[in-house]
Amino acid sequence: MGKNLTKRSEDYSKWYNELVIKADLAENSGVRGCMVIKPYGYAIWEKMQAELDRMFKETGHQNAYFPLFIPKSYLSREADHVEGFAKECAVVTHYRLKNAEDGSGVVVDPEAKLEEELIVRPTSETIIWDTYRKWIQSYRDLPILVNQWANVVRWEMRTRLFLRTAEFLWQEGHTAHATREEAVAEAVQMMEVYADFAENFMGVPVIKGTKSESERFAGAEETYCIEALMQDGKALQAGTSHFLGQNFAKAFDVKFANKEGKQDLVWATSWGVSTRLMGALVMTHSDDNGLILPPKLAPIQVVIVPIYKGEEELNAISERVDPLVKELRSKGISVKFDNRDTHKPGWKFNEYELKGVPVRLAIGRRDMENGTYEVARRDTLEKETIKGDEVVSRIEYLLEDMQQHIYKKAFDYREAHITTVDSFDEFKEVLENKGGFVSAHWDGTPETEETIKELTKATIRCIPLDAKEEEGKCVYSGKPSMQRVLFAKAY
Amino acid sequence: MGKNLTKRSEDYSKWYNELVIKADLAENSGVRGCMVIKPYGYAIWEKMQAELDRMFKETGHQNAYFPLFIPKSYLSREADHVEGFAKECAVVTHYRLKNAEDGSGVVVDPEAKLEEELIVRPTSETIIWDTYRKWIQSYRDLPILVNQWANVVRWEMRTRLFLRTAEFLWQEGHTAHATREEAVAEAVQMMEVYADFAENFMGVPVIKGTKSESERFAGAEETYCIEALMQDGKALQAGTSHFLGQNFAKAFDVKFANKEGKQDLVWATSWGVSTRLMGALVMTHSDDNGLILPPKLAPIQVVIVPIYKGEEELNAISERVDPLVKELRSKGISVKFDNRDTHKPGWKFNEYELKGVPVRLAIGRRDMENGTYEVARRDTLEKETIKGDEVVSRIEYLLEDMQQHIYKKAFDYREAHITTVDSFDEFKEVLENKGGFVSAHWDGTPETEETIKELTKATIRCIPLDAKEEEGKCVYSGKPSMQRVLFAKAY
Repeated sequence: MGKNLTKRSEDYSKWYNELVIKADLAENSGVRGCMVIKPYGYAIWEKMQAELDRMFKETGHQNAYFPLFIPKSYLSREADHVEGFAKECAVVTHYRLKNAEDGSGVVVDPEAKLEEELIVRPTSETIIWDTYRKWIQSYRDLPILVNQWANVVRWEMRTRLFLRTAEFLWQEGHTAHATREEAVAEAVQMMEVYADFAENFMGVPVIKGTKSESERFAGAEETYCIEALMQDGKALQAGTSHFLGQNFAKAFDVKFANKEGKQDLVWATSWGVSTRLMGALVMTHSDDNGLILPPKLAPIQVVIVPIYKGEEELNAISERVDPLVKELRSKGISVKFDNRDTHKPGWKFNEYELKGVPVRLAIGRRDMENGTYEVARRDTLEKETIKGDEVVSRIEYLLEDMQQHIYKKAFDYREAHITTVDSFDEFKEVLENKGGFVSAHWDGTPETEETIKELTKATIRCIPLDAKEEEGKCVYSGKPSMQRVLFAKAY
Repeated sequence: MGKNLTKRSEDYSKWYNELVIKADLAENSGVRGCMVIKPYGYAIWEKMQAELDRMFKETGHQNAYFPLFIPKSYLSREADHVEGFAKECAVVTHYRLKNAEDGSGVVVDPEAKLEEELIVRPTSETIIWDTYRKWIQSYRDLPILVNQWANVVRWEMRTRLFLRTAEFLWQEGHTAHATREEAVAEAVQMMEVYADFAENFMGVPVIKGTKSESERFAGAEETYCIEALMQDGKALQAGTSHFLGQNFAKAFDVKFANKEGKQDLVWATSWGVSTRLMGALVMTHSDDNGLILPPKLAPIQVVIVPIYKGEEELNAISERVDPLVKELRSKGISVKFDNRDTHKPGWKFNEYELKGVPVRLAIGRRDMENGTYEVARRDTLEKETIKGDEVVSRIEYLLEDMQQHIYKKAFDYREAHITTVDSFDEFKEVLENKGGFVSAHWDGTPETEETIKELTKATIRCIPLDAKEEEGKCVYSGKPSMQRVLFAKAY
């Protein structure tokens, strides 16, 4: 019962693409670089959204919605920001089509040209800070703690499902504060929220840190990030939270009267995670048989497959299964009883393995006689026979255990793939043969960072927040350094 | 304590615009025709979304996501469809900006011109049916019951907050079926879901019907709709559900092997409601003091305002209020205890009246002595003094009663504004002086419909589903007619 899935060891990248498509998560569309998120993939994204949204609200944030379009001139207001995004902007120039004179279809109506071109938002700092100017007069109007769930467009030349697409879905938080300290605390808080979500819901261990200057968000004074490690030894940036200083307040003239009645510029943060997390989820846990999903985010947590011949036998099985389904649902566990007669049990086993359903129950003639179920867990593929009156507690245990187990496995892999090096030869050797994070001293200059990137394709993923002060010499230039940073090849 | 709100009787349209802005629902943005939905407005929309999403899932639908962009050529495939949407399309022609040579900012890079222009989706039938071709081979793949929550863009020349904006948020369901009967049943079912939602959650009574040919969705064989009536006597289309026949299957070559193994074209529906519902909600219930919200959709259902002097008194009040807040929350009631010392009680009363919070509790010195609360309901503005041990059940009663009461009030208004007429003079007189729906015979021709529209600005809102067969003569042409239809001026 092959899944015709390329093995990870053969071609990790091909394995990933095939898996995303075969597991019905997403597919490419007729529009270059834009994907279709299929119902099963979207159901996982919805679960992620629900948890994140709850966490945002628990930390005092509210949702709002800002325009899709950004006037071209807004982008220019913040110098670094426009520099960072101008090269990948989808631009709306006209607002009407008309019939082609040769009858071949529709063409752009040259008379319907916009006075000012509109950019499809690549991120919303500019349009939001243009709005905040109207919302903020006094310290009483602060803080503003707003989040937006939206689509954004960055015209990437090389795209991959979930990991890098021209259009993607994300959330972007945009907050405004009276003081630098408060804004920094907010940016740090949201990095912590992201780390909590990644580790405790996605089961993806992450390293918290700050970005080097050249990897920082365009317009930020500091970018906090969480970095994950995929099974092929490449790192993946899973979320970022930016302390924007007063840059956007300056660019959009957003001032407030402080408690002393003096005018002051407002402090800002922004923070986001995107459908890219779907890629991280797939690549962290899954195996050559298909998806492995953390139970907390699995759209279907338990599937029950009856093994039967004829309607009578199915009816008898249903009679036993129906109360179980009800009981599991009453405990908030999502269950599917797949009693379709159009597919054989073996086909179904295969399908749910591919789709990463955490627990599979099978029930056939012998189970009916013995009052048992065959219970299989997706992560280890272990099977066991469980008595009917113990099956609910066993399922509860398995869901909990799997959530822990896949995290632990990913954590152990990650820990085994952080290598401390002190020479550039070693640096290159580790990147070449082992992969993962390389912990090395760096002289702090963008020049060295750039040279290392050119020579090895590795970038500084982050300066870990928990790094100890340590005297050393830059692994490339030999100049003095006070702290190790983490390099890796990355998605 | 004025709200400086224009009275409905003075200028209904101005009242609406002011209310939307003053109640913090939405505002205009720096982008022509695009609005900012503010946190309070968005919280109402989120409640609508949650209910609708639940109803869609209970009727077997799943969510998915399709690209924002539609290749220009896709639109041309369905003749009526392109005719309907070409005149209001935002068109992406380029994918990069570059620095202007004179240093004045960024300009569109002429070298980054797209080979084929992309339309920002005005609706997604074309991109979705291009995708369904890949998903559908056999009758086993049907039905497909998919919904999408998304933003869409229609370049309207005259826009109004929520009612008509260039960009708006909506959901669009797109389903595929093996038979005509099944597709028609789906379209009717979704109209019923919309009517259920409008009446039982929004408290907005609606008339279910079908559209005349000229009011039909571009590409549909039948459009089912729900029509509501606003307080100024104008109708508002609140939701539509389309039976699309095989038009899009033909245009995108989507065929399936039926049970007999023969190739057949797939049958389609699409259905949608949008942030326009926010406009309907505001205009149906609200009064000259501000919003009136149905309790089921109110982001804050109960607000508690302490009336106190000094911290000690506030502490005593808090001690009594805190357990009440907890008890209400445990019952799923959303409560805000507004103990801010930056605003006076009178200011707060005004603010929550403006924002339509259904129940307001006030507690001052005398209430502390007597163990009571002053309880006010927003719809009738009635106040009463309630003992502490009765306040929870009174609140539960009031929330339920208000939900019923505002529906009943809107229903009675609507019923009083359906006028049966048999002459064109009467037709014009009713439209001019009374407004509302005019029930009249119509000869069934688009020409008569168009003439009536030119003469009176009234359009056929719908052919009611529950209309009785009745012999009569067209109110304009005098030609024979078998059924009355509903005319009205409309948003």
